[in-house]
Amino acid sequence: MSLLVVGSVALDSVETPFGKHERILGGSATHFSVAASYFTSVNLVAVVGNDFPDGHLELFKKRQIGLEGLEKQTGPTFHWKGKYEYDLNQAITLQTQLGVFESFDPKIPANLKQPEYLFLANIDPRLQYKVLQQMSTRPKLVALDTMNFWIQNSLEDLKQIMAKIDLLIINEGEARQITGESNLMKAWRKIATLGPKTLIVKRGEYGAIMFQDGHVFSAPALPLEEIKDPTGAGDSFAGGVMGYLARLQATDWNTLKQAIIFGSAMASFNVEDFSCQRIVNLSLEEINERAQSFYHLASFESDLL
Amino acid sequence: MSLLVVGSVALDSVETPFGKHERILGGSATHFSVAASYFTSVNLVAVVGNDFPDGHLELFKKRQIGLEGLEKQTGPTFHWKGKYEYDLNQAITLQTQLGVFESFDPKIPANLKQPEYLFLANIDPRLQYKVLQQMSTRPKLVALDTMNFWIQNSLEDLKQIMAKIDLLIINEGEARQITGESNLMKAWRKIATLGPKTLIVKRGEYGAIMFQDGHVFSAPALPLEEIKDPTGAGDSFAGGVMGYLARLQATDWNTLKQAIIFGSAMASFNVEDFSCQRIVNLSLEEINERAQSFYHLASFESDLL
Repeated sequence: MSLLVVGSVALDSVETPFGKHERILGGSATHFSVAASYFTSVNLVAVVGNDFPDGHLELFKKRQIGLEGLEKQTGPTFHWKGKYEYDLNQAITLQTQLGVFESFDPKIPANLKQPEYLFLANIDPRLQYKVLQQMSTRPKLVALDTMNFWIQNSLEDLKQIMAKIDLLIINEGEARQITGESNLMKAWRKIATLGPKTLIVKRGEYGAIMFQDGHVFSAPALPLEEIKDPTGAGDSFAGGVMGYLARLQATDWNTLKQAIIFGSAMASFNVEDFSCQRIVNLSLEEINERAQSFYHLASFESDLL
Repeated sequence: MSLLVVGSVALDSVETPFGKHERILGGSATHFSVAASYFTSVNLVAVVGNDFPDGHLELFKKRQIGLEGLEKQTGPTFHWKGKYEYDLNQAITLQTQLGVFESFDPKIPANLKQPEYLFLANIDPRLQYKVLQQMSTRPKLVALDTMNFWIQNSLEDLKQIMAKIDLLIINEGEARQITGESNLMKAWRKIATLGPKTLIVKRGEYGAIMFQDGHVFSAPALPLEEIKDPTGAGDSFAGGVMGYLARLQATDWNTLKQAIIFGSAMASFNVEDFSCQRIVNLSLEEINERAQSFYHLASFESDLL
């Protein structure tokens, strides 16, 4: 298999100006793997409780996502309850019940220990480290996401795993928090000293920006008129990025740029409906068309005076 | 002549983490006209007091900016005192002394009444209206900037002049404030009903986005490691945009896209030093090279799956 993701599978209760839904399918590994499944074969490693509805498993199966690494434990599934107000940029967490996720200790099944592409979604950096240690061969590319909680409380652990990865995919606030630099170019220079050769900064409605030694690429976000639920946008973005790289079997600069465009396309679909409702039923034509619309949005000639 | 700007010429006292400068040359018409002067011939209409240093006039003359419309009145020149803290995105106004600007009533000299391109920089919308009325022929393109103060206090006056213009160049907060829409696509649809056929939204470190019927273009900002003083970035952007349009004598979609790139290039130079120090001494080669760097930053192929 080519792409493995380790992260959370959750039940989300989400309220936005466009509706309110209880215990819908969520979690970083969920949005990631559904998005990535259009590009390559994906396996996920996560844990759910015995309250996890069978119907949700069907959704993963429909997208042919490998579930061998999905543990089922006695207890409640990780449950996040949150809402968004009119600007939709900031999630307001109302409640977090870790449930079985609290004691999550990912054990990678033997036949999943040789992924070519590995995504360590946002979990405790010590667990991210333990996952990487379980690989029987070093993947071609290891990417990692994290969040403010770990940066604030486990920075040394985070630095340990950051030293082992290739690609860091985080948001703007996290890049600033890790480095203490408000200027992104300076933040990137500091992050480069911590290990990652490539940094992708997610900027929500402003798109994404990628840094590598001597290169910078800025991708727009598609201006959407209806955003029903931003939950999972960053994970579906990462799923599109990693899925595209795995599909192309390449990690050069031009492939990384394309990966960001397809990641952005997946994120733009993700926010058009709650949970994974929109991204579970896409066609390759729709994805190509969406990627093309990014091209029309951002392309210009290099005319000179 | 081809391009006329009506706005402010000011003395700014500015403090940023990179230095502190007293009574340096500032004002919307200043940054605009210096930036535009690399593309076309520019005339400015503004007012200064009898404390305005002759040395500053030399700077305008060096850039061959027409000063026939620069009134000199008895009293102090408009003086803005402000500072920026580490994130540099938000100006903190410490003091505003309107001086002779308070009674500014722009009178356009007879031989400046037929510009092909007219920029109404941020002043009282009633004055913007009076300027347009003084034109002996309708310019090919009229563009306008404004600010939160007029949106809050003179919205009806602002709507009167907006109904007469072609291109609105404002920042994101202003677009939201005028329309009451946080979603930019929705904001654009409302603005389109008020008159402008084209909207350019300035997004600071996130670049700019342009809307026209059926078209959207998103341009990045260049990630800069040293931003010494953001004052005038928006005006030098507008100067580059309008100067480029006047130079090309065209306002089609592709020319507008290029204009945004050259406007962004001028803004990126502007912030590299205080006042107009950086943008007063550029070569065409430097400007072309900067525009090229935007191309490298944002270009990608339109590959399909």
